[in-house]
Amino acid sequence: MPHDALRPLDAPGGAPLLPQHPFDADGDKLREECGVFGVIGVTEASNFVALGLHALQHRGQEAGGIVTHDPENGFNQARRMGLVRDNFTSADMMAQLPGGLGIGHVRYSTAGSKGQTAIRDVQPFFGEFSMGGAAIAHNGNITNAVALRRELIERGSIFQSSSDSECIIHLMARSMGRSIPDRMEEALRKVEGAFSVVAMTDSALIGCRDPLGVRPLVLGKLGDSWVLASETCALDIVGADFIREIAAGEMVVITATSGVQSHFPFRTAKPRFCIFEHVYFSRPDSILGGRSVYETREAIGRELAKEAPVDADLVCPVPDSGTPAAIGFSLQSGIPYAMGIIRNQYMGRTFIEPSEQIRNMGVRLKLNVNRALIRGKRVILVDDSVVRGTTSQKIKEMILEAGAAEVHFRIASPPTQWPCFYGVDTPERDKLLAATMTEDEMRDHLGVDSLKFISLDGLYRAVGQAQGRDNASPQYCDACFSGDYPVAPSDMIDRGFVTKTAAE
Amino acid sequence: MPHDALRPLDAPGGAPLLPQHPFDADGDKLREECGVFGVIGVTEASNFVALGLHALQHRGQEAGGIVTHDPENGFNQARRMGLVRDNFTSADMMAQLPGGLGIGHVRYSTAGSKGQTAIRDVQPFFGEFSMGGAAIAHNGNITNAVALRRELIERGSIFQSSSDSECIIHLMARSMGRSIPDRMEEALRKVEGAFSVVAMTDSALIGCRDPLGVRPLVLGKLGDSWVLASETCALDIVGADFIREIAAGEMVVITATSGVQSHFPFRTAKPRFCIFEHVYFSRPDSILGGRSVYETREAIGRELAKEAPVDADLVCPVPDSGTPAAIGFSLQSGIPYAMGIIRNQYMGRTFIEPSEQIRNMGVRLKLNVNRALIRGKRVILVDDSVVRGTTSQKIKEMILEAGAAEVHFRIASPPTQWPCFYGVDTPERDKLLAATMTEDEMRDHLGVDSLKFISLDGLYRAVGQAQGRDNASPQYCDACFSGDYPVAPSDMIDRGFVTKTAAE
Amino acid sequence: MPHDALRPLDAPGGAPLLPQHPFDADGDKLREECGVFGVIGVTEASNFVALGLHALQHRGQEAGGIVTHDPENGFNQARRMGLVRDNFTSADMMAQLPGGLGIGHVRYSTAGSKGQTAIRDVQPFFGEFSMGGAAIAHNGNITNAVALRRELIERGSIFQSSSDSECIIHLMARSMGRSIPDRMEEALRKVEGAFSVVAMTDSALIGCRDPLGVRPLVLGKLGDSWVLASETCALDIVGADFIREIAAGEMVVITATSGVQSHFPFRTAKPRFCIFEHVYFSRPDSILGGRSVYETREAIGRELAKEAPVDADLVCPVPDSGTPAAIGFSLQSGIPYAMGIIRNQYMGRTFIEPSEQIRNMGVRLKLNVNRALIRGKRVILVDDSVVRGTTSQKIKEMILEAGAAEVHFRIASPPTQWPCFYGVDTPERDKLLAATMTEDEMRDHLGVDSLKFISLDGLYRAVGQAQGRDNASPQYCDACFSGDYPVAPSDMIDRGFVTKTAAE
Amino acid sequence: MPHDALRPLDAPGGAPLLPQHPFDADGDKLREECGVFGVIGVTEASNFVALGLHALQHRGQEAGGIVTHDPENGFNQARRMGLVRDNFTSADMMAQLPGGLGIGHVRYSTAGSKGQTAIRDVQPFFGEFSMGGAAIAHNGNITNAVALRRELIERGSIFQSSSDSECIIHLMARSMGRSIPDRMEEALRKVEGAFSVVAMTDSALIGCRDPLGVRPLVLGKLGDSWVLASETCALDIVGADFIREIAAGEMVVITATSGVQSHFPFRTAKPRFCIFEHVYFSRPDSILGGRSVYETREAIGRELAKEAPVDADLVCPVPDSGTPAAIGFSLQSGIPYAMGIIRNQYMGRTFIEPSEQIRNMGVRLKLNVNRALIRGKRVILVDDSVVRGTTSQKIKEMILEAGAAEVHFRIASPPTQWPCFYGVDTPERDKLLAATMTEDEMRDHLGVDSLKFISLDGLYRAVGQAQGRDNASPQYCDACFSGDYPVAPSDMIDRGFVTKTAAE
Repeated sequence: MPHDALRPLDAPGGAPLLPQHPFDADGDKLREECGVFGVIGVTEASNFVALGLHALQHRGQEAGGIVTHDPENGFNQARRMGLVRDNFTSADMMAQLPGGLGIGHVRYSTAGSKGQTAIRDVQPFFGEFSMGGAAIAHNGNITNAVALRRELIERGSIFQSSSDSECIIHLMARSMGRSIPDRMEEALRKVEGAFSVVAMTDSALIGCRDPLGVRPLVLGKLGDSWVLASETCALDIVGADFIREIAAGEMVVITATSGVQSHFPFRTAKPRFCIFEHVYFSRPDSILGGRSVYETREAIGRELAKEAPVDADLVCPVPDSGTPAAIGFSLQSGIPYAMGIIRNQYMGRTFIEPSEQIRNMGVRLKLNVNRALIRGKRVILVDDSVVRGTTSQKIKEMILEAGAAEVHFRIASPPTQWPCFYGVDTPERDKLLAATMTEDEMRDHLGVDSLKFISLDGLYRAVGQAQGRDNASPQYCDACFSGDYPVAPSDMIDRGFVTKTAAE
Repeated sequence: MPHDALRPLDAPGGAPLLPQHPFDADGDKLREECGVFGVIGVTEASNFVALGLHALQHRGQEAGGIVTHDPENGFNQARRMGLVRDNFTSADMMAQLPGGLGIGHVRYSTAGSKGQTAIRDVQPFFGEFSMGGAAIAHNGNITNAVALRRELIERGSIFQSSSDSECIIHLMARSMGRSIPDRMEEALRKVEGAFSVVAMTDSALIGCRDPLGVRPLVLGKLGDSWVLASETCALDIVGADFIREIAAGEMVVITATSGVQSHFPFRTAKPRFCIFEHVYFSRPDSILGGRSVYETREAIGRELAKEAPVDADLVCPVPDSGTPAAIGFSLQSGIPYAMGIIRNQYMGRTFIEPSEQIRNMGVRLKLNVNRALIRGKRVILVDDSVVRGTTSQKIKEMILEAGAAEVHFRIASPPTQWPCFYGVDTPERDKLLAATMTEDEMRDHLGVDSLKFISLDGLYRAVGQAQGRDNASPQYCDACFSGDYPVAPSDMIDRGFVTKTAAE
Repeated sequence: MPHDALRPLDAPGGAPLLPQHPFDADGDKLREECGVFGVIGVTEASNFVALGLHALQHRGQEAGGIVTHDPENGFNQARRMGLVRDNFTSADMMAQLPGGLGIGHVRYSTAGSKGQTAIRDVQPFFGEFSMGGAAIAHNGNITNAVALRRELIERGSIFQSSSDSECIIHLMARSMGRSIPDRMEEALRKVEGAFSVVAMTDSALIGCRDPLGVRPLVLGKLGDSWVLASETCALDIVGADFIREIAAGEMVVITATSGVQSHFPFRTAKPRFCIFEHVYFSRPDSILGGRSVYETREAIGRELAKEAPVDADLVCPVPDSGTPAAIGFSLQSGIPYAMGIIRNQYMGRTFIEPSEQIRNMGVRLKLNVNRALIRGKRVILVDDSVVRGTTSQKIKEMILEAGAAEVHFRIASPPTQWPCFYGVDTPERDKLLAATMTEDEMRDHLGVDSLKFISLDGLYRAVGQAQGRDNASPQYCDACFSGDYPVAPSDMIDRGFVTKTAAE
Repeated sequence: MPHDALRPLDAPGGAPLLPQHPFDADGDKLREECGVFGVIGVTEASNFVALGLHALQHRGQEAGGIVTHDPENGFNQARRMGLVRDNFTSADMMAQLPGGLGIGHVRYSTAGSKGQTAIRDVQPFFGEFSMGGAAIAHNGNITNAVALRRELIERGSIFQSSSDSECIIHLMARSMGRSIPDRMEEALRKVEGAFSVVAMTDSALIGCRDPLGVRPLVLGKLGDSWVLASETCALDIVGADFIREIAAGEMVVITATSGVQSHFPFRTAKPRFCIFEHVYFSRPDSILGGRSVYETREAIGRELAKEAPVDADLVCPVPDSGTPAAIGFSLQSGIPYAMGIIRNQYMGRTFIEPSEQIRNMGVRLKLNVNRALIRGKRVILVDDSVVRGTTSQKIKEMILEAGAAEVHFRIASPPTQWPCFYGVDTPERDKLLAATMTEDEMRDHLGVDSLKFISLDGLYRAVGQAQGRDNASPQYCDACFSGDYPVAPSDMIDRGFVTKTAAE
């Protein structure tokens, strides 16, 4: 921000205990920043939204919010730090969110404000316009948010949050469009980056994906009511049928009377969906591109076994995200699959480690090696990705301490070399292990017997592109692996960030 | 609001337990809506602000907020439901509010949103402008807020609260003034009504009173630092010397380097300070017009004893606000002063009364009659005002049940017949007992042996106007007694409210 | 305790914020340790007990507990740290305490364990005996508790609290009495000291006072139901009629079928009620010895004005406990009564004072001097007692800083020279100002123009003993003034404490 | 209890939200009731105990407690409802539990008092004896607790909890033994049933297993300090080496000076360890009988594949406890292993289901079927056990709804036909599906294509008894499968319960 920022302390009850991603001892995972959900035409929308957000909790665990509308009370809003199950399950809370139309949001904080998120940064955001109110929830990242914010402030807008998403509602407020969908279209046309938006007026549910369709958004149907959600697993939990994905660049406006009305307000572009959703972000029981994410990950494991075979006694996943790829690796290679590392299922929040005597305990709090199983064995460890490398290091140590004869890492994604600007929380480039080392250097750095990443083409094959990556016109956004950014990250370029594309 | 309002549930931990005004069983007291405090030039502004707000807690007990600024962290804000002592006394909280410049606010909700106040309605409000941030806290009421809000929304402002005060910051955002004090001047010139504002930039403390000076604001000095506060009792608690009142229509801008700079940005008007501050709102140890509020109230009691003498055995105050006037009445009349009604000092929050068997217990939870003292006595009860009359009714019953021979009410203010639109929470006109009955009718309604209010002239004499009220050009705002509104309440007139002045 | 004590941390949510006695900046007041209440024959006993305890909150503000019994659920118990209004007012809590018979208790911690009270130390205590359960609540202090505890532990009793009162329930458990009242009699005959006990079985409410009747206990009636309470103000709040005091040494057993049955299980003794209950502990609206405590305190003030007159301009109470005596002093002397010191009614819990800059602020947080009133005046300050003298010191400084011409202290009790062992929390003897200085030395130490305590005979006259104290056989327990302990404090004597009586 | 029970509501903050066992929608899992941990000779015992209890959290999630001892403060105790990570991880809490010697306990409530557990029922229990204090924590169940409790109450003991374990400390209190270990021996000799006890004095850590060694207890070493724990996974988390299991009937007394002293105070008996610990209770990374629990479970799966083969496309575990057996089944049968059911890792507490519209959602909140994977497939589902059968029913429905062609259940334990009286929470006999139906009837009841349980001999083989079960003198306690109770459940027999052994 150009000036002194406001450091708001509105979170109730002091510093919130941030629930951590399971097994992410050192912030050594990429984090999806958001999940969105909306429903229209049911009797108690708040229940549906709470359930849907619960199913999307893996996409954001720091905070959540729900807005509903009913004719008697108008718009009702509740936003809370923490998990859905801890905030949105009481009858009392649900009674305060009446109405048959509602949207919701779960979120991580962005890198900059980690640990200081205030209630005011929690979506959905609400704005009152001359023709009525609207609430909006957003998954993705606006790459020209800094510039937009500066411009809006100069024209007299008062920002209440530090969220990039608030720009959208201010752009809508300043639009001269006659209807809220018109204003949203106008606003989104000024916005660059990746966005899957779920919004509502007092009578309509609205969904929209950016022209490249970087973030997911699906449509479901339950009787006469309609559901929008980031992933199909959120349709399953409420018993809705999966109808289709919202297309890249599509906006749908859903009302009780007219059903789903679709149009395409943006200039045409070839879709480039985030390939990392297949590797890690989405839940294994969600369906992407017509196939279960689990099967895709198993296929990644098979591909990896073909590309980088190794003689060993056991294939073990790094729990939990490495599991499907490890199963695929085992099935392809014939090497037995085993749970060599056990996760403590009661982990979640940060455990303190106050004394010198028990330092470096981070990983042991969450994981324990199956010593009797591992001793003397040649072990293949399958993990989804390597970000900073700190976790891989600790797991290797645990496995060796337990007496493994050999340790071979197989990684279900190509080397992560570039930060994401489209809604994923990544470290700065120089903190990415693969941005500073070759594969061999990483192997030596980690001190393992072998280390292999799947190739970019292999990954494309596993997600169903039999010919691999079309380098002339890639089928997915793979900027984190390739540095090929489909949307120029304007704010970052203003700050001097040089993309691979720009540099070459 | 013109459209569906947002019903925000952001208050942490479910519905807040609203601390009640001491002995206000039925919302039967007028309530000051706010207290403000600011300090510049100390080492830990947050401590000073917390102490000052604690001393002003009687002006607003529902919520409080503090903003500070320090060069390292910029602006820091914390807002909480509940009392200062429960929210702003931990070292942890104070550590989150660093800096040597800070302002704060305590508030009641306005009548409309009672019990639904959200954190977002709690002041100070903060806005980020192109030349930097500013925070603002406001005591009073903007009488054209509805019209201003409608206009601002039409031009694209997004309101985040239901507070009338938020208009000020949006007006500032849209101003083209080069400095924040310039923008504040411009904004306040568009605002009608009563306001005592305390605001801050990153380097200046600003205070301003409306042209009539309806609400109080005083200036204090402590070493090299400066303090602004609603009442002098807040100067006492931090050890600051009382320098002077901020004049009606004056704006002061205080910086570390230039000290206090004063100017008068509004058109000149004869000041009309709220006379009810003398009767009830201000703390008895504060100084108004050069005299302690306690002495003024004692003088009111003396005046009342002269105007409406009665033969009796005891003069008893209705605790706690009737105490100084009862002492004055006793001193003037020679009738012994006694505590015939004892207040339970541990009262505060609403006590439930769940069973039929213990219905109508409201007053007994807070007050108990000194039965042995009252039995067989002729008792004069001195109270500060009669609003709905419900409390007077219950107290009379308690006194008679305890065996009093006679009950005489003496009221330290004239009949309250008109609602206040300048920052005091009053019932609708038809709920005001004195708006619907004569003094004799009220006496019969309450079933007491006599009932007398001080005359308006008597009250003016007691506050130091030896000649009484100057009807041609009244010295005070006494609209609640006279219906003579010094500022036309635009929003209310839009809604069809007819003032006495307008009607005659 | 003879061995390593258990330091239990069962209080929920970390260290409890202890509500302080109003205006007791330095622990400079004597503290009554308990209030008790019981009711039988109503439909919702828990409501009555909660209301009664609320009215007795001044007798103990650290914690409270309630036990009820209903045929379906048996005994129900809830104990909480904090005030009654904060813990026992929700419909939810009341629903968990069903039944028409119940008892309750409010408490201070004893001196030793201050600030470490655990839930397990909160009364009522419950015990299950072979003939059924019983709950017991106790106001007073057992002077041979250490010896009893040691003996009981040697015989195999497991203590769960650090409270002296737990001895009673263990003595009952070991009794071979056939009924619970029989066992209670047997237990209480082994107990030395002061006790007013309220207890219950599944069908009876029991009350008992020690042979000297040191602590108060009264009987009330409400329709067909019966109430026991420490003070009559707790009868008033539930609308019960005051029937009589339970006599010294009396035990009453009250059942729905047989009403109140009374007997006297102890050896006869001349009653010696605590005279300090008249001076300070009891609420001014309670009735002791047929007269309101307020009237007694006013009479103390009159007596003080006769014994120690002084020429002055104003009589001001030290709020709140000095008020009635100040009124009496004013009425007797003709010197006008005025509120020279104003109490902040929102005080309660400890306010932090983190910075050097605002040190020594303790008193100012709670009290403020009415500067405009005090300036240039000769002021008589009336307080109830002087314990450590620290508060008197600070008040004197405030009054002088405000410009008083002279300061005269008048104290409504004789010099407090000896600790109480009968249920009042007093400092060690060498911390009592009056134990180490003469009246003149205290005057010089405090730096005031004059300082006078009421004489012991004067106090006796004010409480209704026209002839003053009968030194041969004193009518009251006045050990804190005289060192004449009516019950030898065995445990203390074991530790080497020498009473005046024993010494002479 | 023979009389009216006390229903204590001491749990802070109203009814505790009970964390549920992962995926136990209907209480359809057997629940281990406790885990114990103790350490001596470290600098901050509380950290070690908290970590150890965290690793044992699967053995009890309702509440936890820690007692430590340090020379300065004596014994320190904290007990809380909820998870270790939520209660025992703050520096503040740890600072209140100083000392180098400590024990801890995690627990489920017993069947009877489910949902009403009070803090007072949470272990470790503490007792003060004439020679000093002792704390005790207990895993197991005392089968003559009702009779012991009745006897102890008749002799004057006051029970503070409803826990059977409290008997031990009262028996110790009444013992005339000179030392605490002597008293514990004497007490435990009077106790029948299953117990693994960890206890402490001010200088010794004590461990003891019942004569049959039904519940586990292991000894670990970390430098010069010693650790006792229910399972080896709790040694791993603190970095301690696994030394050996405490033997059946062994008592160890460990001091800083003398190290581990072992003796065998009970009459000799052939050990009969709980075979269900291998199947379900223990963590897969713990070592039992020299082999990892994971490997044993994999072996159960292999054995099951041999005993009950079936032609199918996929082997899927019911997460999470069926996983190792499913892997074993896959490895033996060659049928591919796949995650057909995905668990929501953010589940934990009960999610409300307020509306009709979303009824029967229980399982969907926690599990989702991998529809795309399952469709058209013949699926083998491997689960650890069938208790009530309600969960199996729901999972079958989910799988069929997802379009599976065939569903085959394979269960990694024999039919559960008898309740456990040795520390496991089982439904009454008539609620156990296998107690009322044959295997074929269960298959039809569940409506699956086939259903097979492992045989009792097969299970014995899988845990390492090559010859299967020695029916003349069984090697394990398998009463839940066989009805062969190694210790007669006295209290239950008093109530008319007829065991198979007794009946035959």
